[in-house]
Amino acid sequence: MFRVALWGATGLAGGELLRLIAGHPNMELACAVSRGRAGQPLGGTHPHLRHAYPSCSFVSPEEAREGEADLAFLALPHGASAEEAGRCLARGQKVVDLSADFRLRDPEAHRRWYGAEVPAPELRGRGVYGLPELHREELRGADLVSGVGCNATAAILALLPLARAGVLEEARVECRVGSSEGGAGGDEGSHHPWRSRALRVVTPFAHRHLGEVCQELGLEEERLTLGVTAVELVRGVQCLAHATLSRPMVEGELWRLYRGAYGEEPFVDLCPARPSHQRIPDPRHVLGSNRVRVGFALAEGGRRILAASALDNLMKGAAGTALQGANLALGLPETRGLDMLPVFPA
Amino acid sequence: MFRVALWGATGLAGGELLRLIAGHPNMELACAVSRGRAGQPLGGTHPHLRHAYPSCSFVSPEEAREGEADLAFLALPHGASAEEAGRCLARGQKVVDLSADFRLRDPEAHRRWYGAEVPAPELRGRGVYGLPELHREELRGADLVSGVGCNATAAILALLPLARAGVLEEARVECRVGSSEGGAGGDEGSHHPWRSRALRVVTPFAHRHLGEVCQELGLEEERLTLGVTAVELVRGVQCLAHATLSRPMVEGELWRLYRGAYGEEPFVDLCPARPSHQRIPDPRHVLGSNRVRVGFALAEGGRRILAASALDNLMKGAAGTALQGANLALGLPETRGLDMLPVFPA
Amino acid sequence: MFRVALWGATGLAGGELLRLIAGHPNMELACAVSRGRAGQPLGGTHPHLRHAYPSCSFVSPEEAREGEADLAFLALPHGASAEEAGRCLARGQKVVDLSADFRLRDPEAHRRWYGAEVPAPELRGRGVYGLPELHREELRGADLVSGVGCNATAAILALLPLARAGVLEEARVECRVGSSEGGAGGDEGSHHPWRSRALRVVTPFAHRHLGEVCQELGLEEERLTLGVTAVELVRGVQCLAHATLSRPMVEGELWRLYRGAYGEEPFVDLCPARPSHQRIPDPRHVLGSNRVRVGFALAEGGRRILAASALDNLMKGAAGTALQGANLALGLPETRGLDMLPVFPA
Amino acid sequence: MFRVALWGATGLAGGELLRLIAGHPNMELACAVSRGRAGQPLGGTHPHLRHAYPSCSFVSPEEAREGEADLAFLALPHGASAEEAGRCLARGQKVVDLSADFRLRDPEAHRRWYGAEVPAPELRGRGVYGLPELHREELRGADLVSGVGCNATAAILALLPLARAGVLEEARVECRVGSSEGGAGGDEGSHHPWRSRALRVVTPFAHRHLGEVCQELGLEEERLTLGVTAVELVRGVQCLAHATLSRPMVEGELWRLYRGAYGEEPFVDLCPARPSHQRIPDPRHVLGSNRVRVGFALAEGGRRILAASALDNLMKGAAGTALQGANLALGLPETRGLDMLPVFPA
Repeated sequence: MFRVALWGATGLAGGELLRLIAGHPNMELACAVSRGRAGQPLGGTHPHLRHAYPSCSFVSPEEAREGEADLAFLALPHGASAEEAGRCLARGQKVVDLSADFRLRDPEAHRRWYGAEVPAPELRGRGVYGLPELHREELRGADLVSGVGCNATAAILALLPLARAGVLEEARVECRVGSSEGGAGGDEGSHHPWRSRALRVVTPFAHRHLGEVCQELGLEEERLTLGVTAVELVRGVQCLAHATLSRPMVEGELWRLYRGAYGEEPFVDLCPARPSHQRIPDPRHVLGSNRVRVGFALAEGGRRILAASALDNLMKGAAGTALQGANLALGLPETRGLDMLPVFPA
Repeated sequence: MFRVALWGATGLAGGELLRLIAGHPNMELACAVSRGRAGQPLGGTHPHLRHAYPSCSFVSPEEAREGEADLAFLALPHGASAEEAGRCLARGQKVVDLSADFRLRDPEAHRRWYGAEVPAPELRGRGVYGLPELHREELRGADLVSGVGCNATAAILALLPLARAGVLEEARVECRVGSSEGGAGGDEGSHHPWRSRALRVVTPFAHRHLGEVCQELGLEEERLTLGVTAVELVRGVQCLAHATLSRPMVEGELWRLYRGAYGEEPFVDLCPARPSHQRIPDPRHVLGSNRVRVGFALAEGGRRILAASALDNLMKGAAGTALQGANLALGLPETRGLDMLPVFPA
Repeated sequence: MFRVALWGATGLAGGELLRLIAGHPNMELACAVSRGRAGQPLGGTHPHLRHAYPSCSFVSPEEAREGEADLAFLALPHGASAEEAGRCLARGQKVVDLSADFRLRDPEAHRRWYGAEVPAPELRGRGVYGLPELHREELRGADLVSGVGCNATAAILALLPLARAGVLEEARVECRVGSSEGGAGGDEGSHHPWRSRALRVVTPFAHRHLGEVCQELGLEEERLTLGVTAVELVRGVQCLAHATLSRPMVEGELWRLYRGAYGEEPFVDLCPARPSHQRIPDPRHVLGSNRVRVGFALAEGGRRILAASALDNLMKGAAGTALQGANLALGLPETRGLDMLPVFPA
Repeated sequence: MFRVALWGATGLAGGELLRLIAGHPNMELACAVSRGRAGQPLGGTHPHLRHAYPSCSFVSPEEAREGEADLAFLALPHGASAEEAGRCLARGQKVVDLSADFRLRDPEAHRRWYGAEVPAPELRGRGVYGLPELHREELRGADLVSGVGCNATAAILALLPLARAGVLEEARVECRVGSSEGGAGGDEGSHHPWRSRALRVVTPFAHRHLGEVCQELGLEEERLTLGVTAVELVRGVQCLAHATLSRPMVEGELWRLYRGAYGEEPFVDLCPARPSHQRIPDPRHVLGSNRVRVGFALAEGGRRILAASALDNLMKGAAGTALQGANLALGLPETRGLDMLPVFPA
């Protein structure tokens, strides 16, 4: 049994990690950390988990730093994470970070997208970008696992087979996202009268996850745009990549690329070719699970493709992938504790 | 042409009044007041009205107090309204207040429900409760018109015919309300991930509008409860009053009571007896309009009745009724500027 | 490993049973029966389960009757179930029926609420009403387990402690229900433009589940009404029982009743007394799980109580409770395969 | 006062036309035609309009053909419209058709997109494509006005300034649409559990409105794709055109094009350049009105542009534009009866 500490336990990703830890056969909660709600019962903030943690309260950072744990999940704001990561590592804990602090290898890119110097530069070399579909072997036994951006994960997995094959000329990627992307805090835009049924184009071309996408796909930024629209969903990301191929292709060739990339992946499902309206995935079909669905449609002429993916941003886009990383870091089977099936319709 | 000043112009009721004033043939906007956004274009806050007020900006309270107006709508927070009302009246303006400051005649009731002393006690005698269905004659030419609570309006109009006839023994009233009831500001509960599809019982028995309901129906509080549930709506109130009659009645008698009460009312529509699933009104059928629908169903035995109403809380529950009051106060036809039809389905 | 057959496998309760069977450590799917879609892949109808049943197709009733199984779940329309139940029992299979065919012990009550003679009268004595919270001991090893109505389950569990204690004078019960209650088929009312954000009072006083509620609580019908409102939800029932106690009571006494009834129940959670806005449960907090939450609020005077419950109608209101019944019938631990945690916010 | 007949009066576009006719100062309803509901009160089908048409019932086609009218609105299914149009014209009525029967000038294009021969070929030369922003002068006094596709209208108005200037190289256009696009009838996909919160890509590249878009913009089909995603909305279309310019451009030049195209248009509003999150329009800001909002954002490098529009598909996408056309055909001011302001938030 591994003891895991959870930092940032009152947030949405924090709540999702609590759900996962409660159901994990090889993990137990060492502590759930919250500066603002230390001493308060966990069930007050996460009413759906009250019965799973009947007598558990949040603890302060100071208390948490006194306690023991094998691994720490950091669901802290960008910037605050790196500092705590150093402390945890120094105490001999493995760290799975969900923030953006360790995602970008290039300090200049971090500066540009996050408007700040890279935090904890001494740790950067140790962090592994936490997407097992790309970095599985590096993640095994790793000490420091970086989180992934939910939109980045969706975009990367939609385009990876094309990028790897060197046939992706350019793509205009757009993600439709639910309100849980914004976290538990809320801002003016998340006030229900403004957010309900919104189709708000938050950014038309250059969402900050674009940096991750380019890094992981090995593409120059000139080839990609990444737009984000807030839609009427709480959970879920749907990514539509309007891509151009560098040469005309036929369906069979594309199926070989996608099957080759994902045939062995435990959490990636390819959408069927038929019926045609199921080719492009809908995030409702993965709700509450760690699965990601990937599909594509090819236009006449063989050069224009719509490559798409759908995932639950709190699961495969955050807590679920973090748990995959933690399993790998701890030497557990990668899928352990992640076999819940999607809840649909919901 | 009457010149009207609007105080609290950035809020939701304020926005709705701007929509109404823009379409009113006998009113023009003197000023739209906002302390926080003075100098900013009106269309930034109310994008749906940009074209209707192409070159209009908010003004500060100080500027507004220098300007002229025939009538002031006060869509200000409870407490702040009364003070401004006094100033407006002193400048010879008529006042239509949307806050709760002048609703309750009994200072003790105000204290109890709003946790504060009655503001501007010297003005209380002059205010008329602004529900034309109850106080039409007093409202004609009035100087100070009080706003009405949206839930109170719904409950009063559902039960009025029974209360007037003296056959209402008791009622457990519950309102299902949209998120726009909470105003433009937002609180933790209105954060979209918490509010979306919520069925949150905000108060089980004693919403603060109960004071108005008892006052206007002339009933002791022991006879009524008023519960409120926040549901997945932006606009709309549906009121279901689970009432007990003091004696068994038959349908025909009840129809006479309801038709007698509302047959001449320009904005009250009775639901048809058939088809039976249309007896209880749905607020979607009055969206964007000043109409209120009232219906009832009688259980076997003739003593248990479900009396119900539905309205748009920003219209008949706030801005629409306020404009009815303003029309009456200014000597205009009561329905002027209020003939828009509901938008359905939406 | 028990082999289970699923009849009515294309419906919503059928889909939910497929999700549960896939995750159950002691069950495997013998066959998924559909007359209309025999031969078609299961993943076409239930896209969220494609990866869990990668090579499974629906079979015809005729094929299913040739196959072997230890237990049959019948998610068939009312009326069709009883006939198939007889055949399954004759082949030595245990039967868990989700229809209403075996719910009402009194043939007259069945006739009245379902407008038809009781089907398979020879089997009626053998069926056990499948709510473990009421009939746990009878369900152990039972051959024929009846389903439960989702609204009935919600109403029964909200009121059971009061009814058992003999303090329930009367109650006006109302359920707010999601669109999945209507099944996969759809009717005019479920067309999205009509159903979205609806507050449609489907029945004000006498939903057909009232028969079950009275039977199981041992109350005469004169004491209860059961209204149903369709609200903007896909899954979920919230039941609010506006009840009157036969004598004034205090909170502590009520807590003893509710704790006494549910303290040992594995799937019933009592809402906390504080914070007060969490006293009345919201179905969003049990989404996708088999849990039911029960709470209450007592009005001043001690006679008027709001007793409430919330559940996921496809789980605790249908498939989840059916699996509890199947576990008990097969001699398995009651909670086996039902430990998934709620997905929130979603 | 012009007398107008409405064919197809039970549908969603029909209901919207009834709302418009009721509020139009120069029109009165001659008859509301329905084969299936002849004799039934109009308020049963359109409960939100009951008070506006208190004693009006639907009439059969046969009755309607006996009556008199100055103009007929045809909100009939594709194919049925053309036949009735001929009869109406023969009786001397002007016709405003909302179907697709007269939209495409090229019979081959009609065949391809609608899978049928062009109906009423003898009338084709007489029909004018009913988008006043493109064909205002031809519409004045016209006898036969064709309807417009809602998605086509959105796409055309987003791209028109670029196409006219000859700078549009290609565009991948996608529309996000509400459930009212499917009409009042409903199909499996519109069943609420499937449709609620859906992100269903109905067609990735070639929605049938593409024919209209190419015809009206004068572009070859190779340059455009038109995808449609069903989203959680009842009313509304948001069109995002991911376009490539044939040469690098700067913002100022684009503003001149868009202002030049729409500066005088009574129903087209340009989105402001600032704040930047208001550049791309949201259909919630035009709900219930005849307005269309158009905006754009230019990516670095000056070649990639996101050109966008938003409208209410039942208004500017159907009934509203039809009324504009009717006004022009009858010699009335084009905006008559169309000055209602958007309802927001709703």
